[in-house]
Amino acid sequence: MNKASRIFCPALITPKNAVVKPTEQLSRSQKLLTELGLVKSGSNGTYQIMPMAQRSVDKLIDLVQRNMQLAGGQKITLPILTPTGLWKRTGRLEGDISEFYMVRDRSGKQFLMSPTHEEAVTAMLATNSPISYRQLPLRLYQIGPKFRDELKTRFGLMRAKEFLMKDMYSFDVSEETARETYAIVSVAYNRLFQQLEVPFVKVNAATGMMGGSVSHEYHYVSPVGEDTLLQCSSCGFAGNSEVLDSQADSCPSCKSRDLKDVRGVEVAHTFLLGDKYSKPLGATFLNTCGKPQTLLMGCFGIGITRVIAAALEVLSTDQELHWPMLVAPYDVCVIGPKQGSREQPAAEVIENELLLNVGELCGHQELLHDDRKELTIGKRLLEAKRLGHPLIIVVGAKAVQQDAPKLEVHLSRGEKLELDLSEALKLVAEHSHYKKSLLKGSFQPDKDESKSQSVGHQL
Amino acid sequence: MNKASRIFCPALITPKNAVVKPTEQLSRSQKLLTELGLVKSGSNGTYQIMPMAQRSVDKLIDLVQRNMQLAGGQKITLPILTPTGLWKRTGRLEGDISEFYMVRDRSGKQFLMSPTHEEAVTAMLATNSPISYRQLPLRLYQIGPKFRDELKTRFGLMRAKEFLMKDMYSFDVSEETARETYAIVSVAYNRLFQQLEVPFVKVNAATGMMGGSVSHEYHYVSPVGEDTLLQCSSCGFAGNSEVLDSQADSCPSCKSRDLKDVRGVEVAHTFLLGDKYSKPLGATFLNTCGKPQTLLMGCFGIGITRVIAAALEVLSTDQELHWPMLVAPYDVCVIGPKQGSREQPAAEVIENELLLNVGELCGHQELLHDDRKELTIGKRLLEAKRLGHPLIIVVGAKAVQQDAPKLEVHLSRGEKLELDLSEALKLVAEHSHYKKSLLKGSFQPDKDESKSQSVGHQL
Repeated sequence: MNKASRIFCPALITPKNAVVKPTEQLSRSQKLLTELGLVKSGSNGTYQIMPMAQRSVDKLIDLVQRNMQLAGGQKITLPILTPTGLWKRTGRLEGDISEFYMVRDRSGKQFLMSPTHEEAVTAMLATNSPISYRQLPLRLYQIGPKFRDELKTRFGLMRAKEFLMKDMYSFDVSEETARETYAIVSVAYNRLFQQLEVPFVKVNAATGMMGGSVSHEYHYVSPVGEDTLLQCSSCGFAGNSEVLDSQADSCPSCKSRDLKDVRGVEVAHTFLLGDKYSKPLGATFLNTCGKPQTLLMGCFGIGITRVIAAALEVLSTDQELHWPMLVAPYDVCVIGPKQGSREQPAAEVIENELLLNVGELCGHQELLHDDRKELTIGKRLLEAKRLGHPLIIVVGAKAVQQDAPKLEVHLSRGEKLELDLSEALKLVAEHSHYKKSLLKGSFQPDKDESKSQSVGHQL
Repeated sequence: MNKASRIFCPALITPKNAVVKPTEQLSRSQKLLTELGLVKSGSNGTYQIMPMAQRSVDKLIDLVQRNMQLAGGQKITLPILTPTGLWKRTGRLEGDISEFYMVRDRSGKQFLMSPTHEEAVTAMLATNSPISYRQLPLRLYQIGPKFRDELKTRFGLMRAKEFLMKDMYSFDVSEETARETYAIVSVAYNRLFQQLEVPFVKVNAATGMMGGSVSHEYHYVSPVGEDTLLQCSSCGFAGNSEVLDSQADSCPSCKSRDLKDVRGVEVAHTFLLGDKYSKPLGATFLNTCGKPQTLLMGCFGIGITRVIAAALEVLSTDQELHWPMLVAPYDVCVIGPKQGSREQPAAEVIENELLLNVGELCGHQELLHDDRKELTIGKRLLEAKRLGHPLIIVVGAKAVQQDAPKLEVHLSRGEKLELDLSEALKLVAEHSHYKKSLLKGSFQPDKDESKSQSVGHQL
């Protein structure tokens, strides 16, 4: 069980007459995360993740890993330092390199603080080349910090210079099996985003600097999104306007002119890369005839910290955070009576019984006990609601009324119930049960990968 | 269940007449990890962790976190990029800075790729200063990559330029409570190292560039260790020879002259820092009288990747890896009959029954099925032994003998048993039970924190 009095959650108290720089706190997720002490701003464009937000990050990492394992992913770690020489061989140092952090070691050798790892993983494969076709397909992923010296950082964790990514790289024997891998990982991405229960849009995308032939982006729709998406109201087709600009007034799928613009935050991106990296870096396999042949690749990114910030942006109100259920820092928050109040002695008996039972139902780690009895119930409840705990249970004066003792239960989005102990526990049990069913993916996955608002062009 | 045929484990096949550079592969752990394809060498002094070793790293991270949580630790993430300005304020850029990786962003601002985070965490606290004494003690930890541009990297993961660390920072109201924190974290360290079951030595250490007043190192004793430790055979006192050099011929504790030299690999280090960082960076708290007062700090490091490499170095033979039980990549490896062998059809029935039962006993994720039936049992067994799986169960010809079918069970360190199915399953159950008891710490922790070979000076 976690005690609120012990959790480091350094709320930012902005002095009344402070001048807030206009570049800061432009989005409500960033504003709430900062004000509530969940995320702190480090040096320009870097962020410090505080304990409560860290729980959310760790839960999302677990969830992403679970889905990557189901897609046949194997976890590895590649160094953050990648020799720039590898990037020269793939031609990726020829354009604008102002977003790259570069560093030299004591011998003068130059490295990138990797913004992505196509070169590193392909070169690693090349040192083992040729591997046997029997080893393929191969799907390697990692979860770690990435670096991009953005000209303009925005919205806190949503566009930071240092951020957490899941990046997977796939290696296949043929274009056909590479497409199979792409489809399998896409199913995993759809499942993940369904589990997060934030409406998402999957769109055709430009391959850009990454190269390759096919690419899709996953977006959360939000006014703070930096991409413009075109959605067809008739058939549901959606695309990034970068890709569709030549045909902007009719749907490329159904020719309807019912296209509308929405703003999207890109939270994930998938690419079929072909041999763009494997050819120059010499990553090959031995085919069934024993001849070396170039590996065909895909890559699949998810912005871990960005997913959390963007999901909060979409779900929250200006006053209250609302979390995707599976990544809320805690499932249940219990608030007991104030010290010295008339009901304190009797209410604490009920509080203890509640804590014991709730802990057993949802797991003691998922229970936050706001034990700061020096604070009024009202003050603690307000903070708990701002923090967005999915279930808040208050043990107050009504808990000790003679004839019908009631607990006050607050659900996300303002719903308030008065329940007796067993009813409250039933609600906790239902919450845990629903979480488990989400985790198992035992909801009905869509046949066409589309449960969401709309879906892009299929492969 | 994990299938050996699907695991990316790129064994390094050294050509017979290859010239092996003398600076490489000086230690047996590095040699075996590389040859078996568990770790690959990236650019000079960086390493790529392959899936099987990654499992070990992830298990150690879990174990370390469990112990940090028990010691009241709260997990956070600090950026890898720390502004050099902070380090100037604490004076740590005044000496030799050749080991630091420094990088400038597009605006010219300089950052360290952090080798450690005292400045960053203290500056973060300072932006919240003064916090209330009620929030203290505070113990914040993170697990992430650290960077040190070593003049000489050695022994693979044991001394790399980029490595994984757990670093905890503590903040207290007084010297006395800082010492209490130090004692509590030290108990957690002792428990962790006991759970790993590798003999360790805790010694007095020099505080060095870190500063502060009290410091202890935790060492694994190995000929490849870079530190010289002095151990007293009479009383068990031990110290780093750096600290003891003036008294090198008699024990500072019992005055015995029975001192011997051993070599140690430093796997963890603890410091009482006092106000070395909090004072220059202005990290304060409000005391019970409402007056601001400087925080007193401690810091506590564990080299995650180094612990694994050094533990393997100590436990393994030249031919076979031996893992600490709690961080072995898998608990059990099952090897079935060869394709086309006479016993194949009958043995596979037993193999399937075994796999099902073993998976249920030890957890399906802990079971590795070597399903490469195109390979002989002998070849797979040899590899499994080299990889050091704690329990290897072979379903071969003897599994289908008429009167007394037997499975061959290989334990670490060469012990071989012939058991029937139920006996083999009993062994798996015992293994899992022992692992659980280790995890719970339900062995008897030493009163004097010393279960190990010897122990240093107590606080």
